[in-house]
Amino acid sequence: MMERLGRRLRIGVIGGGAGSFIGPVHRIAARLDGKYDLVAAALSSDPRRAAEEGRRLGFAPERVYGSWRELLAREAGREDGIDVVAVMTPNDSHFEICMAALDAGLHILCDKPLSTDVSSARELAARVRTAGAEFCVTYCYSGYPMVRQARDMVRAGELGEIRQVQLQYVQGNLAEPGPSSGWRMQGGRVGGSLVLLDIATHAFHLGAYVTGQDIASLCADVGATRPGGEVDDYVATLMRYANGARGSLWVTNAAAGSEHGLSFRIHGDLGGLEWHQEEPNRLLHRRAGGFDQVLTRRLDPAMSPGALRSTRVALGHPEGYLEAFANLYDEFAEVVAARLKGDRPPAEADLFPGVLDGVKGLLIVEAAARSARSGAWERVEAP
Amino acid sequence: MMERLGRRLRIGVIGGGAGSFIGPVHRIAARLDGKYDLVAAALSSDPRRAAEEGRRLGFAPERVYGSWRELLAREAGREDGIDVVAVMTPNDSHFEICMAALDAGLHILCDKPLSTDVSSARELAARVRTAGAEFCVTYCYSGYPMVRQARDMVRAGELGEIRQVQLQYVQGNLAEPGPSSGWRMQGGRVGGSLVLLDIATHAFHLGAYVTGQDIASLCADVGATRPGGEVDDYVATLMRYANGARGSLWVTNAAAGSEHGLSFRIHGDLGGLEWHQEEPNRLLHRRAGGFDQVLTRRLDPAMSPGALRSTRVALGHPEGYLEAFANLYDEFAEVVAARLKGDRPPAEADLFPGVLDGVKGLLIVEAAARSARSGAWERVEAP
Amino acid sequence: MMERLGRRLRIGVIGGGAGSFIGPVHRIAARLDGKYDLVAAALSSDPRRAAEEGRRLGFAPERVYGSWRELLAREAGREDGIDVVAVMTPNDSHFEICMAALDAGLHILCDKPLSTDVSSARELAARVRTAGAEFCVTYCYSGYPMVRQARDMVRAGELGEIRQVQLQYVQGNLAEPGPSSGWRMQGGRVGGSLVLLDIATHAFHLGAYVTGQDIASLCADVGATRPGGEVDDYVATLMRYANGARGSLWVTNAAAGSEHGLSFRIHGDLGGLEWHQEEPNRLLHRRAGGFDQVLTRRLDPAMSPGALRSTRVALGHPEGYLEAFANLYDEFAEVVAARLKGDRPPAEADLFPGVLDGVKGLLIVEAAARSARSGAWERVEAP
Amino acid sequence: MMERLGRRLRIGVIGGGAGSFIGPVHRIAARLDGKYDLVAAALSSDPRRAAEEGRRLGFAPERVYGSWRELLAREAGREDGIDVVAVMTPNDSHFEICMAALDAGLHILCDKPLSTDVSSARELAARVRTAGAEFCVTYCYSGYPMVRQARDMVRAGELGEIRQVQLQYVQGNLAEPGPSSGWRMQGGRVGGSLVLLDIATHAFHLGAYVTGQDIASLCADVGATRPGGEVDDYVATLMRYANGARGSLWVTNAAAGSEHGLSFRIHGDLGGLEWHQEEPNRLLHRRAGGFDQVLTRRLDPAMSPGALRSTRVALGHPEGYLEAFANLYDEFAEVVAARLKGDRPPAEADLFPGVLDGVKGLLIVEAAARSARSGAWERVEAP
Repeated sequence: MMERLGRRLRIGVIGGGAGSFIGPVHRIAARLDGKYDLVAAALSSDPRRAAEEGRRLGFAPERVYGSWRELLAREAGREDGIDVVAVMTPNDSHFEICMAALDAGLHILCDKPLSTDVSSARELAARVRTAGAEFCVTYCYSGYPMVRQARDMVRAGELGEIRQVQLQYVQGNLAEPGPSSGWRMQGGRVGGSLVLLDIATHAFHLGAYVTGQDIASLCADVGATRPGGEVDDYVATLMRYANGARGSLWVTNAAAGSEHGLSFRIHGDLGGLEWHQEEPNRLLHRRAGGFDQVLTRRLDPAMSPGALRSTRVALGHPEGYLEAFANLYDEFAEVVAARLKGDRPPAEADLFPGVLDGVKGLLIVEAAARSARSGAWERVEAP
Repeated sequence: MMERLGRRLRIGVIGGGAGSFIGPVHRIAARLDGKYDLVAAALSSDPRRAAEEGRRLGFAPERVYGSWRELLAREAGREDGIDVVAVMTPNDSHFEICMAALDAGLHILCDKPLSTDVSSARELAARVRTAGAEFCVTYCYSGYPMVRQARDMVRAGELGEIRQVQLQYVQGNLAEPGPSSGWRMQGGRVGGSLVLLDIATHAFHLGAYVTGQDIASLCADVGATRPGGEVDDYVATLMRYANGARGSLWVTNAAAGSEHGLSFRIHGDLGGLEWHQEEPNRLLHRRAGGFDQVLTRRLDPAMSPGALRSTRVALGHPEGYLEAFANLYDEFAEVVAARLKGDRPPAEADLFPGVLDGVKGLLIVEAAARSARSGAWERVEAP
Repeated sequence: MMERLGRRLRIGVIGGGAGSFIGPVHRIAARLDGKYDLVAAALSSDPRRAAEEGRRLGFAPERVYGSWRELLAREAGREDGIDVVAVMTPNDSHFEICMAALDAGLHILCDKPLSTDVSSARELAARVRTAGAEFCVTYCYSGYPMVRQARDMVRAGELGEIRQVQLQYVQGNLAEPGPSSGWRMQGGRVGGSLVLLDIATHAFHLGAYVTGQDIASLCADVGATRPGGEVDDYVATLMRYANGARGSLWVTNAAAGSEHGLSFRIHGDLGGLEWHQEEPNRLLHRRAGGFDQVLTRRLDPAMSPGALRSTRVALGHPEGYLEAFANLYDEFAEVVAARLKGDRPPAEADLFPGVLDGVKGLLIVEAAARSARSGAWERVEAP
Repeated sequence: MMERLGRRLRIGVIGGGAGSFIGPVHRIAARLDGKYDLVAAALSSDPRRAAEEGRRLGFAPERVYGSWRELLAREAGREDGIDVVAVMTPNDSHFEICMAALDAGLHILCDKPLSTDVSSARELAARVRTAGAEFCVTYCYSGYPMVRQARDMVRAGELGEIRQVQLQYVQGNLAEPGPSSGWRMQGGRVGGSLVLLDIATHAFHLGAYVTGQDIASLCADVGATRPGGEVDDYVATLMRYANGARGSLWVTNAAAGSEHGLSFRIHGDLGGLEWHQEEPNRLLHRRAGGFDQVLTRRLDPAMSPGALRSTRVALGHPEGYLEAFANLYDEFAEVVAARLKGDRPPAEADLFPGVLDGVKGLLIVEAAARSARSGAWERVEAP
C-alpha cells in the first residue's frame, strides 16, 4: 500500500454513530492495518449529535458533517478530500448514497444488503462499471482466513466435485428479553424481510464464496416464529446449485438462547469441510477413507494463498471478527491504490465481495420471498 | 424384573447372523442388564450357516433353527418356549415375520422401518392391538439418557413452546471407497427409498420423541447425489409440526468423510437444546438471557426421571450406543413382565417407541416421497 | 471363547452388593459379551442382605453365600464350581481374599489397588506365579480402544521417542455438598492415602500402559486441600521415566465442580497424543509439521490391532466405560480358556493389566508418599 | 481518551522491525482503538534497514531513527515529541533502554521479561517510582476479556477460597522441522533459561493475575527434552500460593505438534474455571452441585466490569490475540492521559500488568532455577 501509493488512503464514514454496532467495527477495520486515514465523518442525521460524536472519536471538527450530502459535497471540494467512503446506514439509504458517492468520484465500501430490491441493485452495479469505481460489499464473513482456506481447497479440487451444502445462521437476539434494536424493527428501513435481508444474505453469500457455485433454484419457508412476531425471523430453504449440488439452509434471529451461529458444511466426492464463525481459526476437514484433520490458521505455507494473505499473527494466536472485517478494508485499499496509480488490479481483487455479489444477494432474497409465497421451487435469476 | 416375574424372560432372535452390524448389538442389548436369557435363534436362511453361527454364539444346538418359521413353530411347542422375539431381518420381511409372531402369542422387538409401506404397517399395528401383545420398534437413539432428558425438559415447559427444530443425520458410508454393504443396495429388500427408510426415519422419530410433536406437513428434496448413484442417498425437508413449529432436516448417507452425524437442535420461547449422538452424554442447554449450560449424564436427581431411569453409571463415566439400545430392551422387559403377570403397564411403557411410532415413520416417508415428486408441500396423514 | 472351550466360564463375585458403584459394573462387564455365566455371589458380609440382593440379581439361592470364605469353600466342592472369581471389596481385604482364591485354584479379576502395601502385593504376585493362575487387575481405563490405539502407535514408533508426559485425574466428588461415600472415608479400609490408592494409581498405570515406560523417580506433593480435610485429596508430581522422558501429574478428588477428568497427553519427537476419558472415542494426534488429526474409534483396519480387538460397534456409534471394563473381562476369558485347555496364552494376554502392574502401582504410591514427606525426588523401586 | 486529553498520545517504537513477530502486534495494538499516533520508530540497529522499514510502514522519514538512543534524544528535542515509548527488543536490552527512556521523561510499554535478572528488575522498578512514570509490562494474555472475567469472579468470591491451580503453556515450535528462530536461540540475548524467561513467565503471571495470589514456594524441574537440546525447553513445577492453595505447571516449547497451549484451570470451594488461549472467548465455569456453564464474551452486563471494559464487539463475534494486546495499550493510554492532565489514576490502572509484576516474574524464574539445581522446594522472595 505504502509501496504502491506512497501514502495512506483518505476515507470518510457515513453512518455508524453512537449506539451503532457496526460503526466502531468499520472504524477499527479501517485503522487496523494502517492503510487508511479516517478523516471525515457523517455520523448522524442530527448535526449536534454528529458533532459531539465526531469530537469523541477524534475527527477534526471541520470534517465532521451534519449529513452525508454535505460530506460528499465538501470533501469533493478539498484538495485533500477523501478517496473512499464507507457506507453503514440503514438498508433503504444504501442505493441513494452510493449513487451520489459514485457521482462524486469515490470508491465505496458498503454494508449488505446492497439495496432493498433487485432493480436498484442492478442499476447501482451498472453505475459502478461506468464510473470505473472500486466497490466492496462488506459480506464480512468472507474475510476470515479459514473461509478463504476452504474456498482455495475447493478450487484446487481437494474435495472433488461439490455435492452437498448446509448453511446455518442461527441467532437469538430477537428472542431475548428486553427491547429490540433500533431501525431493524421498522419495516421501512429494512426494505423487506428482516431475516432475509439482514442475515440470510450473509449465509447465502458464504455458501457461494466457498463453493464457487451460485444457487440455481430454491424452495423457501419464510416467516415469523415468535408469538406475535411482526417481522420475519425465520427462513429455511432447499437449494439446487449451478453444478447440481443440493443444499439446505436454516437462518433465524429468533432461536432463543443462541449466539451467532453462522456456519457452513460442504461435501464433495473426496471429503467435506465444516466451519463455524464462533471458532473461526479452525476448519474441520473430513476426508473420505481417512481421519478428520483440524486445519488451524497459521502464518506459514501450510495455508492456502488466500488464507495466508489474510492472516496477521502466528499459529495459536487467535484472530477474530475485527481482523476478518479489516481484511476487506486491507484488500480494498490495495485495489484502490492500484486504480489510483493506473495499475492493473492486484491479486487482492479476487478476495473481497464486489457489487455483483451484492446484486446476487438480492436476487436470492427475491426468489426466496417468491417461493415462500408460492410454496414451490423457484428459479434464481442471473444477475 | 426379577422382582416382578421371579425369572428372566426367554428371548429368541430372528436374523443378525454372521456379518450383520445389528445382530451383535441386539444380543449385547439383551444380555446387558440380565433380564433376558437368549435361548433361541434363527440366524440365517442357510441352515448350515445358522447352525455354525449358533454354536459360535453359545446357543444350545437344539434351539438354533434353520428358518424363522421353524423357530416360531418349535418354540411354541416347548414348555420353556420364548416369551419375546427380536426381529432384525431385511425391511421387506418385517411385516410377515411380525404377523406370524403375533399369531404365535409372542411379544416383539422389531427393527425400523416397521414395514415398507403404510398399509401393511397399519395392518400390523391393528393386529398388535387385537393380539394384546407388547411391541417395540427399535428407534434406538431414543434410548439415550440425554435424549430423554431433553424430552422431559420440553414436557416440563423448561423451553416454553417449541418454535424451531433442526434435525440432521449425516453419514458418509455410501461415499467411502470399497464395496457397499449387503442387502441395503438391493432395492427390493429395502422396500423403497434407502435414505428415507434406513436412516431418515430415525431422525424424524427423534424429533417427534423429543418435542412431543408430530409433523403435520413437509416439503422434501430426495435423490441421489453420488455420481451414478442408483439409490437415494439424500433428503432435505422443510417441515411444519402440529403445534405450528417450523423445522428443517438434512439426512444423507453419502456425505464423504462423515461418521454418524445424528443430531437435533430445538428452540422454544425460553431457550434451546442441542444433542449429538457422537457425544451422547452431553446436552447443550442454551438459555434466553443467560449462559449456556452443559448438562452431562449422571446418576443423581439433577437428571430428569426419564434420564435417570435409563442411566447405569455415575457422572463422568460415559455410556454409549449399546447402553442406549439396551435401554429399550430393559424397559420392554418390564412391560412384558407386567403383561405376563397381568399387572398394569409400568412407567417404562412411556419410554420406548411402540408400533404406532413405526406407522408414523412410514407415513412421513410416504409424504416425503410424494413431496419429492410434486415439488410442493404435502400433508402427513394421521396414523 | 466358545470356539476355545465349548462352554462359558463360570464366575463368582465377591463384594459389590447394594449401594456399590463398582458391583453393577463388574456384573454388566461379565455379561456383555456372553463369555461368562454369573453363577455365584458373596454380595455382603451381612447374610440376610446378601440373600435378598442375590435374589434381586437373579442368582440361584443356593449359590448366594453369606461370606467370601463360604463361597470359596462351597464352590470348590461343586462339580460345576466357578472357574473365576471377581473381587470388588474394600482395599484392605484384597490380599487375603486373593490368596485364599488362589489356594482354591481359581483365576482372579481383582479391583485396584492390588493391596495396600508393597510387601503384601509382592507376596501375592509371587503366589500367582506359583499357583499358575491368571490374574487381572481392573485398571479399567486401559480397556478403552483409543487407549490401546495410543499404545500401539507409541510401540510402532509413530511418535518417535517419548519426551514429555502429562497425566490428570481431576474429580470433584469429595468437594460436592452432601455426605461422602462409604468405606472410602474410613482410613483403615482404604489402607493409606485415599487419593494415591484410589485414583492416582489409575493415572500412573495409564501413563505406563500407553508409553510403555515405567516411572524411575518422582517428586510429589500430597495432601488435603479441603478445609478441615482429613483424608488426602490432592497429589501432584514431577516424574522421570525409565527412558529419560519427563512428566507431571495432577490428581485430585476435591476439585469442586469437576466430573471425571482422567486424561493423558504425551509428546515424542514426531508428535503427540491426547485422550480424555470423558470423550473416549476420540484420540487427538498432533503431528510435527502437519495438522492435527482426530482419530475416532471404528471397526475397520484404520485402527491399530489393539484398538480393533477391543471394539464392538462401527464408526460413529460411541462406546463407553462399560465396554472398556468389559474388554478386560472379555480378554481375560480368552486367556483363562486357553489355560484351562492347556493352550499357549493367546494375544489377549498382552492387553489387560496383570498382577505385576498391581505391584508397580503400590511401588509408585509408596515412592510418592516418601517424597511428600522428604520434599525431594525419590526413586521408584523395581517390582 | 479524547475526552480526557483532547488529543491522541504520541508513541514511538523501539525494535520490532522486519521479521519480528511482535513488532506488527505492537503497532496494530497501538492503532486499533485510535488512542495513539504512531510517530517515531527505531526499528533496527542497522540504519539502512531501519529507514527502509520505516518507509514501508508509513512513518515520516525524519522520525525513523537509526538507534534507540537517537530516538530518545531527538524526540526529547521536539515540541511534538513522543509521550510514550514501546520497547520490543531482545530481553537483555530492556533494562538499559527503559532506564534511558525514564530519564527522557517517557511512559513505557515494555515486553516481558522486564529484565534478565532480579537486581536490575528491582532497580528499574525503583526508578519508575521516582520518575513518576507509567509502566506496562506486556503480559499480553492478561488482556483477554474472559481472563478478566475469571479474575473478577474470584475477587467477588464466586469460587470461594482458591484451593487448586493448574497452569499450562505447551508449545511445539522448537520441535518443528526447520531452522529455529533468531535471537532466542542465542543464550546471551535471552539472558537465562529460554523456557523460563520466554514463556513460563507468561503462565506464572496469568495464574497470579486470575487468582490474586502470589507463589510462595515451588519445586521445579527445568531442562532440555530435545535430543541434543542446548537450551531449556521444559519446565514443570509444584507450587504453593500465598493463601495455601496448591498448584502445578507444565510449560514447554518443545512438545512436537503443539500450537500455543496456554491455559489455566483453578478450583475453589464452590467451583472452578478453565480457560484456553486458543479459544479465548469462552470460559468454562464448573459449579459444585450444578451443571457446567460456558461463559462467552459479550457486550452486556452479564459480563464482569473488567471483562466488559475490555470487550469491543457483541456476543458471538470472536475477538482474539490482537484485541487482547490492544487492551493493554488502550488502558495504558487512559492512565497516561490522566497522568498528563494531573488527574487521579483511572480504573484502568488496575487492569494492566505493571513494573512490579515484571519484578515478580523474575523472582519466580530465579526461584525455579534454584529449585531445579537443588532438587528441592524453594521460597519465592517478595519483590
